[in-house]
Amino acid sequence: MIIDPLDRPLPGASLHPTLTGDAYTDPEVFRAEQASIFETMWNCVLRADALPSPGHWRTVQVGREEIIVVRSRSAGIRAYYNVCAHRGMRVCTGYEGVSRKLQCGYHAWTYTLEGDLAAAPNLTSMPDVDREDYGLRPVHVREWLGYVWVSLADEPPNFDQEVLGEVRTRFGEVESIDNYGIDRLRVAESKTYDVGANWKLIIENFMECYHCATIHPELTEVIPEFADGLASQRAGGAVHGSGFGQDVAGFTVDGSESGLSELPSIAPDQERRYYAITVKPQVFINTVPDHVIVHRMTPISPERTVVECDWLFAAEVVDRVESGELDVARSVELFHRVNLQDFEACELTQPSMSSKAYKGGGALVPSEHHIGEFHEWWRRTLR
Amino acid sequence: MIIDPLDRPLPGASLHPTLTGDAYTDPEVFRAEQASIFETMWNCVLRADALPSPGHWRTVQVGREEIIVVRSRSAGIRAYYNVCAHRGMRVCTGYEGVSRKLQCGYHAWTYTLEGDLAAAPNLTSMPDVDREDYGLRPVHVREWLGYVWVSLADEPPNFDQEVLGEVRTRFGEVESIDNYGIDRLRVAESKTYDVGANWKLIIENFMECYHCATIHPELTEVIPEFADGLASQRAGGAVHGSGFGQDVAGFTVDGSESGLSELPSIAPDQERRYYAITVKPQVFINTVPDHVIVHRMTPISPERTVVECDWLFAAEVVDRVESGELDVARSVELFHRVNLQDFEACELTQPSMSSKAYKGGGALVPSEHHIGEFHEWWRRTLR
Amino acid sequence: MIIDPLDRPLPGASLHPTLTGDAYTDPEVFRAEQASIFETMWNCVLRADALPSPGHWRTVQVGREEIIVVRSRSAGIRAYYNVCAHRGMRVCTGYEGVSRKLQCGYHAWTYTLEGDLAAAPNLTSMPDVDREDYGLRPVHVREWLGYVWVSLADEPPNFDQEVLGEVRTRFGEVESIDNYGIDRLRVAESKTYDVGANWKLIIENFMECYHCATIHPELTEVIPEFADGLASQRAGGAVHGSGFGQDVAGFTVDGSESGLSELPSIAPDQERRYYAITVKPQVFINTVPDHVIVHRMTPISPERTVVECDWLFAAEVVDRVESGELDVARSVELFHRVNLQDFEACELTQPSMSSKAYKGGGALVPSEHHIGEFHEWWRRTLR
Repeated sequence: MIIDPLDRPLPGASLHPTLTGDAYTDPEVFRAEQASIFETMWNCVLRADALPSPGHWRTVQVGREEIIVVRSRSAGIRAYYNVCAHRGMRVCTGYEGVSRKLQCGYHAWTYTLEGDLAAAPNLTSMPDVDREDYGLRPVHVREWLGYVWVSLADEPPNFDQEVLGEVRTRFGEVESIDNYGIDRLRVAESKTYDVGANWKLIIENFMECYHCATIHPELTEVIPEFADGLASQRAGGAVHGSGFGQDVAGFTVDGSESGLSELPSIAPDQERRYYAITVKPQVFINTVPDHVIVHRMTPISPERTVVECDWLFAAEVVDRVESGELDVARSVELFHRVNLQDFEACELTQPSMSSKAYKGGGALVPSEHHIGEFHEWWRRTLR
Repeated sequence: MIIDPLDRPLPGASLHPTLTGDAYTDPEVFRAEQASIFETMWNCVLRADALPSPGHWRTVQVGREEIIVVRSRSAGIRAYYNVCAHRGMRVCTGYEGVSRKLQCGYHAWTYTLEGDLAAAPNLTSMPDVDREDYGLRPVHVREWLGYVWVSLADEPPNFDQEVLGEVRTRFGEVESIDNYGIDRLRVAESKTYDVGANWKLIIENFMECYHCATIHPELTEVIPEFADGLASQRAGGAVHGSGFGQDVAGFTVDGSESGLSELPSIAPDQERRYYAITVKPQVFINTVPDHVIVHRMTPISPERTVVECDWLFAAEVVDRVESGELDVARSVELFHRVNLQDFEACELTQPSMSSKAYKGGGALVPSEHHIGEFHEWWRRTLR
Repeated sequence: MIIDPLDRPLPGASLHPTLTGDAYTDPEVFRAEQASIFETMWNCVLRADALPSPGHWRTVQVGREEIIVVRSRSAGIRAYYNVCAHRGMRVCTGYEGVSRKLQCGYHAWTYTLEGDLAAAPNLTSMPDVDREDYGLRPVHVREWLGYVWVSLADEPPNFDQEVLGEVRTRFGEVESIDNYGIDRLRVAESKTYDVGANWKLIIENFMECYHCATIHPELTEVIPEFADGLASQRAGGAVHGSGFGQDVAGFTVDGSESGLSELPSIAPDQERRYYAITVKPQVFINTVPDHVIVHRMTPISPERTVVECDWLFAAEVVDRVESGELDVARSVELFHRVNLQDFEACELTQPSMSSKAYKGGGALVPSEHHIGEFHEWWRRTLR
C-alpha cells in the first residue's frame, strides 16, 4: 500500500509488463533467490527483547539455513549456524531456550555463548586440535528498531545503504521513522500466516493500493483515499502518509476510537496518517499514530511463504493489556483482516503463474509503478 | 473392453512387446504428454446442460491448465484460461457459479461473457489502453454428444478426423452412435475416481478383455463371451458389440431386468449388446440398450489420474429417478464395480513400471493387439 | 558401538574430515547408492522361519525393488521380482500369504513356486510362446544366521568375502559368532523404526561410542566402559567385546538379572560381554550372553530410512514367553531405548547436512576412525 504522487496516471501512460510467470514457479529461480537475496541481504529475524539476558537463545530460519540467535555474555546479541562443528547435529533443538553454554546433545561438544569451542570429551587427549578452528560458524548481526537483523554473507551489504536507504526513500529522512520510537515499543500480539504463494506476489501486493477498493472494505472505510486506488496527495513532491477519513476516530477495525494515546514523539504531519514502507527483501513496516505493524517474510518454496506479523504498542499500553485493563483487539483486528484479504488474493494468483496464459506475464497500470521498480531491482540483483 | 475379430489368435502369432516402464513414470515423458497430447488434442470436459443459461460457468482442468467454461449471451458456450490479463489472479474461483460478467476479485477487472475487457478501475484515465488486448485468452470449443470439448492448441486438430474418426473406426459409421441420442440423454449419476496409476495403464486396461474373466465376475455373468477374453464374433469383418447372456434380462449388476425401456432409436443389432469405444486421449464411451456410460480422464501426475464417470439415461428416466419413482442403482452398480476392479488392477501395476524387471516392458498376447496400436499412436504423437 | 584398540587416541592424531553434506542429501547420490550398493550387494531381508513350508511367501523391499521371497517345493527359499512377465502387475499383493502357485490377479498368468510360467489363459492357442521366456525374474538367495539374504546383481558379490568377511574382521574368526547359534534362535520381539535420516548417518552412529556418555544413560550403566567413549581394551591387538559393569546382573534396561540362561555354546570370553558388528551395507548384529539383536535397514529416500530390529532368544525362551511363563520386556527395553536415542540424534543431524556450514563436512575424533574407514569404503564402492 505504498502510495505516492507518481501513482497518478501520467498522460499517455500505457500498461507496463510484469515479470513472466516462471519467476514465481521455477525451482532454479527460487534457489538463486535464496542464495543471492535471502542468504546475502539483511534479514529481520527477531525482536531483540525476546532475548532478555545472556544465554537466552532462539532458532530462526534465514534462507535455507537454521540460525541460532543468542544473547552473549560480553558481546551483545550473536548469531551462528545451528550446526555442530563435529558431526553437524543441531546444537540448539527446539524454538527457544536459556543455557549458560551451547552444548550439542550428540557428543557433548560445548561452545561459549560467544561461539568458541569450550570443551569436548577427550579433547585434552587430542593435543593438536586448535579450538578456534572448531567454533560455531558466525553470521553478521545488527540491531535496529528493536529488531535483530542478520546477514549470512561473508561480506554483508552496507546496512546504512541497503536497509536505512529503503526507509530514506520512503520517509525522506530516517529520522521521521525515529519519531515512532519503534525500538522502545513492545509486541502486544503476533500472528503467523502460512501463505500458499511466492514471496514476490506478497511484496507486489503490499506495493500497490489499486486492489484496496476491491478487497479491503474495512481499510478503505478508515482511509477513504485508498478507495480510488490512487493517493489524493497534496501538491508537490513531498511524500507523506494517507489520511484517516473525517469521521474516523482511530485506526481500528470499525474506525472507532482506539482508546490509546498517540506515540509521544510523532510529528504533526504523522498524526491521523498511515505510512507504509517495504524494506527489501522481507520486511514491511506500517505506522499509525498509536501503534506500528511489522511484517517479516520467510520464503519456504516457490509456492509458499511464511509471514510473521507483530503489532507493537507503547510499553505502558502492553503492560495494561497484560494486566487485563486494556484491550487492543479492535486495533489488531483491522490489519489482521487486511492480511487475510491480501494473502487470499496472493494464493488465488499463484496457480496462474504456471499457466501458458501468463507465460509472457501480465500488465501493470500506472499506479502500480512501484512494482515495476521492484522488478527492475529483482532482475539487477539476481543477475 | 474393445473386442473385434482380430482378437482371435492368429496361427503363429507370438507375444508383442509393450512400451517400456519409463513411459509410465518419467516426469519428462509426462510433461511431453501434457504438452503434445492433453494441451493440444480435443478434451471432453463437461456436460453442456451443466451450463443451462447465459452466465453459468464451471472451471475444469485441461492438461496443466485451469479453464473457465461459460455459456455466453450471444455465442453459445465459450472457454477461457482462468487467468486475469492484469496480474493473473484466477477470475472464477471455486467450481461453478452464475454471473452477468466475469469479474476478477483482486482489482475488479471485468470481462464480458464473450471474454472482452468491459471495465477496470481507472481504465478511462488510461486512454491508450486497447481493451481488445486485455481480454481473457480463449480456447477452442466444440459440442458433441451433449458434451463440451475443448482444445488448447492455437490450431486445434480437425474435430471430424480426430474425434469422430475414432468413433468411425469402432462403429463403422458415426451414425450408429447417433442412434443412442446421447446428446438428449441426461446424467443420473456421476462418480469421480482418484486412481494411483498412469493414464496409459487405464486406457490399456479399457482396450482389452483378456482380464475380464479374472477380475470382472459380474460383467462376465452378464456378457459371457467376455469370459474367454476373446470376442465370439460373427464371421466376416463387421465389427459389432458383445451380446448379453441368454438368461440375462438387463445390463445390471445381477443381470436382472433394469425396468427401463430401450433408447428409442437404436438399431436391431444394438439390442442386447454392449459396445465400447475409446476416444483418444481421454474418453471412453460404453453403450447398452437402455443407457450410456461415459468416462473422462484427467492426468494429474505420472502416477495419478482422475477419472469422472457419468451414467446417462433417457430424460424421462432421470425425471422419474429424481422424483423417487424409479431406481437405477442396479444399472449404475454394474459399471461402478467394473471401474473399481479395473482401477485396482491399474494401481497394482503402476509400481512395477519403475522396476528393473519391467525396464524392457512386458508382453501383449494377440487379443491385446489394440494396445499395440495405441502404443504406435503414442510413439507417433509424442515424436 | 564398535570399539577396538585403535579407538585410543594416537599421539599427534588430529581431527579427520567426514564426507561432505551433499553425500547425505543429493538425490543423484542416493540413486547411485541404490544402484551400486543396495541393488548389488547382499541384503538381509527376512527371518527364514517366517516361511515355514512350501508356498509361504513374503514381499520385501530391496533398493527400489519389491521382491517376493517364497519357500519353494523343491528348491528351498527362492526370490523373484514382484512383476508379472505379461503386463507387469504385482503378482503377490500384500505383505505375506500362502499359495500353491503364484498367480497374477490381473490376467491369471500363473507361476510355479520355482518361478516358471505354468499356465495363462489362451496360452495353448499361442503355440510359439516359450514358457521359459516368461517366468518370474529371479534374484540370488543365500541363508545365513537363520536369515534370508538376497542380491539383485546379475553376478552377486562373493558371499564369503563380502558378508562373512565383515564378521571375520570384527570377531577374528567367523566361528566365534557361531557360538551364539543365531540360526537356531527365534524372534521374541520385532520393532520397526521410521527414521528421518540418511542411512549413512545411522551406520556412522552405530560405528562409534563417543556419543554413548551423552545419549545412552541406561547402556553406559550396564557397560561402564562406554562412558568414556573409548574401549578399555586389554593389551594387544586382540579384538574383544565390552564388559558388563561389576554390579550388573544382566543386559537389561536396569542392569537387573534377565532371568535367562546363557546361550549354551558361547565361549568363556563371550560371557558378560557385548559384541557389535556392522555387516555393510544394512545389517547390525549385537550379541550378549543370553540374546542377540539384529538391525536391518532399508533406505527410502536421502532423508528417510526404515530400520527393523529383531530381538532373538533361545527357542525354549520364546516358547515360555508365548505361553506367558516368562517376560523378556526388560531385556528388549534396553536396546529399544538405545535405538530411540540413536535415531533421534540422527534425525537432529540430518537437517544440518544441507547447511552451508556443513558443505565441507565435519570432523572425526580419533575414536571415530571406523567412520573414516566406512567413508573410504563408500567412496570406493560408488566410484
